Amino acid sequence: MIIVMKTGTPELEVQQISQELQRWKIKPEKTVGNHKVIIALIGDTADINPQYIQQLSPFIEEVLRVKQPFKRVSREFRYGEPTEVLVSTPNGAVSFSENHSIVTIAGPCSVENEEMIVQTARQVKAAGAKFLRGGAYKPRTSPYAFQGYGESALNLLATARQETGLGIVTEVMDTADLEKVAQIADIVQIGARNMHNFSLLKKVGNINKPILLKRGMSATIEEWLMAAEYILAAGNPNVILCERGIRSFDRQYARNTLDLSAIPVLRSLTHLPIMIDPSHGTGRSEYVPAMALAAIAAGADALMIEVHPNPSKALSDGPQSLTPDQYEKLMQEMAVIGQAVNRWEPKFAASTVSSLSPNYQSAKQLCNSTITVMTSHN
Amino acid sequence: MIIVMKTGTPELEVQQISQELQRWKIKPEKTVGNHKVIIALIGDTADINPQYIQQLSPFIEEVLRVKQPFKRVSREFRYGEPTEVLVSTPNGAVSFSENHSIVTIAGPCSVENEEMIVQTARQVKAAGAKFLRGGAYKPRTSPYAFQGYGESALNLLATARQETGLGIVTEVMDTADLEKVAQIADIVQIGARNMHNFSLLKKVGNINKPILLKRGMSATIEEWLMAAEYILAAGNPNVILCERGIRSFDRQYARNTLDLSAIPVLRSLTHLPIMIDPSHGTGRSEYVPAMALAAIAAGADALMIEVHPNPSKALSDGPQSLTPDQYEKLMQEMAVIGQAVNRWEPKFAASTVSSLSPNYQSAKQLCNSTITVMTSHN
Amino acid sequence: MIIVMKTGTPELEVQQISQELQRWKIKPEKTVGNHKVIIALIGDTADINPQYIQQLSPFIEEVLRVKQPFKRVSREFRYGEPTEVLVSTPNGAVSFSENHSIVTIAGPCSVENEEMIVQTARQVKAAGAKFLRGGAYKPRTSPYAFQGYGESALNLLATARQETGLGIVTEVMDTADLEKVAQIADIVQIGARNMHNFSLLKKVGNINKPILLKRGMSATIEEWLMAAEYILAAGNPNVILCERGIRSFDRQYARNTLDLSAIPVLRSLTHLPIMIDPSHGTGRSEYVPAMALAAIAAGADALMIEVHPNPSKALSDGPQSLTPDQYEKLMQEMAVIGQAVNRWEPKFAASTVSSLSPNYQSAKQLCNSTITVMTSHN
Amino acid sequence: MIIVMKTGTPELEVQQISQELQRWKIKPEKTVGNHKVIIALIGDTADINPQYIQQLSPFIEEVLRVKQPFKRVSREFRYGEPTEVLVSTPNGAVSFSENHSIVTIAGPCSVENEEMIVQTARQVKAAGAKFLRGGAYKPRTSPYAFQGYGESALNLLATARQETGLGIVTEVMDTADLEKVAQIADIVQIGARNMHNFSLLKKVGNINKPILLKRGMSATIEEWLMAAEYILAAGNPNVILCERGIRSFDRQYARNTLDLSAIPVLRSLTHLPIMIDPSHGTGRSEYVPAMALAAIAAGADALMIEVHPNPSKALSDGPQSLTPDQYEKLMQEMAVIGQAVNRWEPKFAASTVSSLSPNYQSAKQLCNSTITVMTSHN
Repeated sequence: MIIVMKTGTPELEVQQISQELQRWKIKPEKTVGNHKVIIALIGDTADINPQYIQQLSPFIEEVLRVKQPFKRVSREFRYGEPTEVLVSTPNGAVSFSENHSIVTIAGPCSVENEEMIVQTARQVKAAGAKFLRGGAYKPRTSPYAFQGYGESALNLLATARQETGLGIVTEVMDTADLEKVAQIADIVQIGARNMHNFSLLKKVGNINKPILLKRGMSATIEEWLMAAEYILAAGNPNVILCERGIRSFDRQYARNTLDLSAIPVLRSLTHLPIMIDPSHGTGRSEYVPAMALAAIAAGADALMIEVHPNPSKALSDGPQSLTPDQYEKLMQEMAVIGQAVNRWEPKFAASTVSSLSPNYQSAKQLCNSTITVMTSHN
Repeated sequence: MIIVMKTGTPELEVQQISQELQRWKIKPEKTVGNHKVIIALIGDTADINPQYIQQLSPFIEEVLRVKQPFKRVSREFRYGEPTEVLVSTPNGAVSFSENHSIVTIAGPCSVENEEMIVQTARQVKAAGAKFLRGGAYKPRTSPYAFQGYGESALNLLATARQETGLGIVTEVMDTADLEKVAQIADIVQIGARNMHNFSLLKKVGNINKPILLKRGMSATIEEWLMAAEYILAAGNPNVILCERGIRSFDRQYARNTLDLSAIPVLRSLTHLPIMIDPSHGTGRSEYVPAMALAAIAAGADALMIEVHPNPSKALSDGPQSLTPDQYEKLMQEMAVIGQAVNRWEPKFAASTVSSLSPNYQSAKQLCNSTITVMTSHN
Repeated sequence: MIIVMKTGTPELEVQQISQELQRWKIKPEKTVGNHKVIIALIGDTADINPQYIQQLSPFIEEVLRVKQPFKRVSREFRYGEPTEVLVSTPNGAVSFSENHSIVTIAGPCSVENEEMIVQTARQVKAAGAKFLRGGAYKPRTSPYAFQGYGESALNLLATARQETGLGIVTEVMDTADLEKVAQIADIVQIGARNMHNFSLLKKVGNINKPILLKRGMSATIEEWLMAAEYILAAGNPNVILCERGIRSFDRQYARNTLDLSAIPVLRSLTHLPIMIDPSHGTGRSEYVPAMALAAIAAGADALMIEVHPNPSKALSDGPQSLTPDQYEKLMQEMAVIGQAVNRWEPKFAASTVSSLSPNYQSAKQLCNSTITVMTSHN
Repeated sequence: MIIVMKTGTPELEVQQISQELQRWKIKPEKTVGNHKVIIALIGDTADINPQYIQQLSPFIEEVLRVKQPFKRVSREFRYGEPTEVLVSTPNGAVSFSENHSIVTIAGPCSVENEEMIVQTARQVKAAGAKFLRGGAYKPRTSPYAFQGYGESALNLLATARQETGLGIVTEVMDTADLEKVAQIADIVQIGARNMHNFSLLKKVGNINKPILLKRGMSATIEEWLMAAEYILAAGNPNVILCERGIRSFDRQYARNTLDLSAIPVLRSLTHLPIMIDPSHGTGRSEYVPAMALAAIAAGADALMIEVHPNPSKALSDGPQSLTPDQYEKLMQEMAVIGQAVNRWEPKFAASTVSSLSPNYQSAKQLCNSTITVMTSHN
């Protein structure tokens, strides 16, 4: 940490600050410039709040923090070695890591009934998904909107896992529900609106399940990593970071602004695996394919995509859901890019680039000529 | 609700949509324009999600919602009559309402120890505050930062109330702590980071204490009102809305952007009382006085201001806390503006404008010449 | 400036950087900490781009600038003495400065015809305005919208000045029009969309007229001050800064977010006078009174308010314009607050607080019960 | 356009509005619902400002625009047919269009001297670039920063074209410089800070050169398309839209937030070609490769990338520039993705996927392990 003093600070004041700092077991070193005096703090300053230091004297102009505030999630903490989050599912263990194939998660926003969730699970599995997502507890802006079927939906997810062998990803919203959710979920999701629910973060840090931590709507990269730090600090090292679109000044077309630059930024800062959710990230199914392909090219380790057997009847988030057919086509297009970057599981890879190029064309059509494609699937 | 059809929609499609809508017990009325066909939905559409309707047909261009999504919090719901949130304290009942005097709440970010909280309570009471604020459970960005003293801090707040007769405002972060918090608090606070914690909103809707609902960092006015709607829908009509600064692109000087236009906007939309928190709203004590005075002139019903006996030693949020002396001066300046708008409690009013004008000068000095004023108080 | 080296930087690299820096006539001073090496740059570093230094070596973690990038606009540049922008008008000289009475500017968005502009000028003068605003060249989002009457509108503004003695404020959008505009205008306005039009900033720095510089929609305080620095650096010291609302994530009710905290922030950073435009700042006439009163309480030196004889027929920005009657009422309410803070010109001051308090009530009505008030003026 | 009346509007008022509207040659059609009366406007309402209509009566609750405000740039305007912007260069004509191969533009932020610009031109040509970018007139935040070499830099660009046959892209900032710039440039660039400089937009609409229109830092998609509409409305149909990062709340790591979802959004709204600038879009060279590859996967028609022979000595924007070697490697990686989506010019295509996969690995290294890669290139 570095303390910058105001121009004209009396020497006595600098001495007093230095003495004060020594009582905190920090060694202050003074540098006198033409205009400014600077005090560098030597020692373990990670736990010191710059605000305390700022308040030591009205002559302090600025306190600059040199070290990043996050520790356990930082890339340095593991000497550059990426974390591999290994999740066991009935179909076998799946690795989330920058050194492994891209993992895909698919399913509806909400679990609506057994037939719907089991059928969707079968279809996304056939297309190559490793995990089924589905909401039992739903965060909804309106108290009058469908809030999820809760515990009974958890049981339906268990049925879907039994039927298909897919792993289950589902969200917890309340510390009181965590035990129930963790019993069923293979990966427990913390949603964007709860990224700053510190009570919940501490609790999921104490369980023995991997955590999918979505970025808050207006969370900085640093705040997001600090939220992950809460989980690691509480003892759970298995965290997957999921970018799902941030809030910007323009929400007329895309509902959120999907921040794909989070991929290279996080890669340089943390060892944790990175997932992209293009469904919430754009809020409109017609923009999902372009963003899913882009995420793979940018280096994402996993993708989560909303799929609903009948989006127009969905109890929540219909406009951003693909149909199972659209999802299957997108998976073929994703295979082309995934293979190009050597991160696609061989058995699902496209046989050759040329034979699959028409699939990319269909991806282009999907985003370019919404009307036609949407009609054909309705 | 209004459905706008795409140019060139076949007549048959319009008929099918109309039939589908009638099954939902809505009466559709068609208007044919030069370029577009429009279907207006007649009936109670408040509970219908426009997204469902959008998905009825790929020929639907846009679904426009005419009525606001919030009901119980809307000004119309009470025929324009403002809510009066009446809170009993040992010193007597206090009214939060646009028809009453402005209520002031003051105190430290966190409760640190008995001497500190009782002393602060006495000082802010002497300056005219009606409520003491103080955090027992603290939402902190870093897991390594001070997290509040929890239950023991609640007991210290109870002591401070007993000693001074002030009402107590304190935050709840977890549904598991609600009972304990509600036993001590006269007003239960939901912080900005939990504005979208729907589990918590439902729970505080079931208790018999007024709720202070802070605006989320990036919550729109509509989302904020919908969060309040959760509480009212669950049965608790006593909600005070508190603007505390939103997140914008510029955080170099002020930490947040205090959105004072929320005051006239909310006034026209809702019957609930409106509070301003200039301390979190700016994040820097030297900007607090100007924003507190502005809030009063703009029509705020209440103000919450952070006061700490020794900001440089504060365990949290020191940089935005006033000293008790600074707070007392600010209250005198607030009295000048509060009196000018006829919303200041007579016994604390300035005797005459002329005799108090130097106080405003000191307010100006406080924000203009930070160094001098800050020095004199340290 | 301070250079923070990465952990593990070889000593040789630090030496090489230090040598490189000395060639730039800067004296580097090294501090060795437990984790980091820091190099403080001593000398005149104001003109050095931190990015150049960053690029000196891949081992540099961060370059921190200690001094602010603006010079001539900084408060220190005038040793804390505020600038007084003195503008001569036919009715006498008017001072914009924190040491003088608040100056008010009023008028329509666009000059529409002689009768309209002269009539409006007379009415706003009667209410106490010192300047008439009116657009001859209009920045419009759509090429199909009214673009202003250009040169002929300038002549109408000259007529209005002759008839009323008010000073004229009007906007220049193109360097090619500057000469014409400057011939008529007493204050030349740079609009928000041109705050980063550096060619225009340099040109207005060469003329002998005061400049009203609006903040760009998404300009940081620092960028705004740097834009003013362009004008001062080119030789024109008479700049008035005008906050007119910034772009945030919520534009559903207020069109922009009026950042009133800019007032205390700017006051501490610069010696230039500060104006608030609550009309563009909110975009809705019903929110203008509350924000105008708040601006005065927060310490603004001037206010610019849109007034149109018939807002519903305005060629631009009707929804944010007050009628002359509404403006007159607002001026009376502004007098109450202006007098309370000792910054209202005596002859327009309210005679006593008590007799004027009903005016504030009408201000409250203006924002609270839009329908009634608006109806009475239509 | 649709007018929604307030609850309880008297029938007489609706009649008066309807009569008023007919004078504007619009046919109003009334629909009476349970709660609301709605008036649909039939006829050509494209040129009517909804704000005028709003002001017709205080009983109007909302005026909803059905048709988009842009015409000539809309996809419908060309019946879905994409525009092909055909630019002739000494090396032959180059097409910007969604039906052609991806076009690459590269070069330094500023033209510094003949050797530097000619050498860079040769290197980026060898790597496959079709155009050289280079600034003669530079928009800089600080008046004390390098402002570009102006006219002499234009001559150096002409030399570079002569030497390499590359087309030239350079920025115009002032209407006064347009003639000079257009004489040299094959594509004239309007920078982000001038996207709302309407005088300049009108002027470039009158020249016979293609225009590269960058998105303003906080411009919505609609505002950006309206800026393009200015150019098309003035007679110039050859506009290329370039996304270069928007301003969001987080600028700690990436300097801007590159909005790649603009690609599918624009594709559905407009026929104009779409370019991505990942250099300004992230502001840091280590994030450029990931975002360039993502842009191709998302469907971009062109990419503009900053390349400087020695970024650490660059007079501007060094931190975001690649070295020529880094650019060459990136082009090979771009070829892999470009080929996978069938949009890469055959002669620059990767021979087979397998042989090029190591290049992607190097791309990954470039973004993942900044230190190592950067060191090897310095």
